[in-house]
Amino acid sequence: MSGEPKIDRVRLRRRHDRGHYDKETLYAVLDAGFVAHVGYLIDGAPFVTPTLFWREDNHVYWHGSAASRMLRQAEGMPVCVTVTHVDGMVLARSGFHHSANYRSAMLLGDAFIVADPDEKAAKLDRFIDGLFPGRVAELRPATAQELKATTVLGLAIDEASAKIRAAGVKDDEEDYALAVWAGVVPLTMTAGTPEPDDRLAKGTPLPPHIAAFAQRLKGAGA
Amino acid sequence: MSGEPKIDRVRLRRRHDRGHYDKETLYAVLDAGFVAHVGYLIDGAPFVTPTLFWREDNHVYWHGSAASRMLRQAEGMPVCVTVTHVDGMVLARSGFHHSANYRSAMLLGDAFIVADPDEKAAKLDRFIDGLFPGRVAELRPATAQELKATTVLGLAIDEASAKIRAAGVKDDEEDYALAVWAGVVPLTMTAGTPEPDDRLAKGTPLPPHIAAFAQRLKGAGA
Repeated sequence: MSGEPKIDRVRLRRRHDRGHYDKETLYAVLDAGFVAHVGYLIDGAPFVTPTLFWREDNHVYWHGSAASRMLRQAEGMPVCVTVTHVDGMVLARSGFHHSANYRSAMLLGDAFIVADPDEKAAKLDRFIDGLFPGRVAELRPATAQELKATTVLGLAIDEASAKIRAAGVKDDEEDYALAVWAGVVPLTMTAGTPEPDDRLAKGTPLPPHIAAFAQRLKGAGA
Repeated sequence: MSGEPKIDRVRLRRRHDRGHYDKETLYAVLDAGFVAHVGYLIDGAPFVTPTLFWREDNHVYWHGSAASRMLRQAEGMPVCVTVTHVDGMVLARSGFHHSANYRSAMLLGDAFIVADPDEKAAKLDRFIDGLFPGRVAELRPATAQELKATTVLGLAIDEASAKIRAAGVKDDEEDYALAVWAGVVPLTMTAGTPEPDDRLAKGTPLPPHIAAFAQRLKGAGA
């Protein structure tokens, strides 16, 4: 990528202090997550579908069944990919100043399909290893039929902004005298105890990538 | 509400077993969350903005600055409000059968503005008390200026579907012989230790609604 970022449509109109347009910040917000909400059009109306996603270089990717309405509608069409982390609830001394701490990224552009089967297979491997480092090496390769049944969509991280609130309570000066609790309740996504499949062969060890995934969630905070 | 639900546009095209259209299920998915992703149009292109939301009877509401582009664009316009809980990662014996457990709700319709100041104030009180039961009684009332600076949007829960996956690993029969760990890693949103504001008066007690909020998150699992 080169040149000035395209930010006209994604520029924050208000709260300019919360807006970020640099790749480092954008990548950090994206890489802390694995769930995106994809906006697309059907007959001119907006639809928003949650999906797992991953980043590779200056693109995000998501996938699904080749029969998926969301994926079929998105190809070559304008989409909006939004990734959000809610980091805390901000309880102020007035209702008005209640807020949330969060990090979000909004990406606009036309989605494209990863058509080449080898490239598609590599992208899907990157997806799994991105979540669970080293897992792909433990799995059988995808079959041609599985790849055919899977659509991978991509979007360049080009027209994009991040929005971040990571702060404490901001009250009106006269409200600080009020006898009401004020502060931040932090929120984190946490991984619980892995639940082995009923048919797991006895003695199959828990691979280290499960702990790595849980650790990554812990480190994903602001 | 009466009559048959309008589900043509929100009906699941695939994975019919995951689709739900009854109010009980929809309300349960909505009430377990407080973050929505709202899809709307600007110049014909889809935008997706995260926002806090709340449900009251057969409507969802969200709010923001009266100067918000998202809120101004959404009034009287088709929107899509999507609420998602990711409950677990499903690790299968093949990459293809990896999945996620989740609950999501998708609501379509035209958003409306809650214009009446008293109704708006009541809705905002309901929002805060829905998150932190009893907090409104501890706060000073909103001022007329604060209400004027706040826009509340609503959407009827009319054209809506929920999509739920809450299951274990489903592998191809021949893959069960593979020596790879398979199972579910559960995910939950958890509230951490409350962080009091620097200027909190010494001795201000932590109100019970903070613990209630944390407890609600624990109970929000599938």
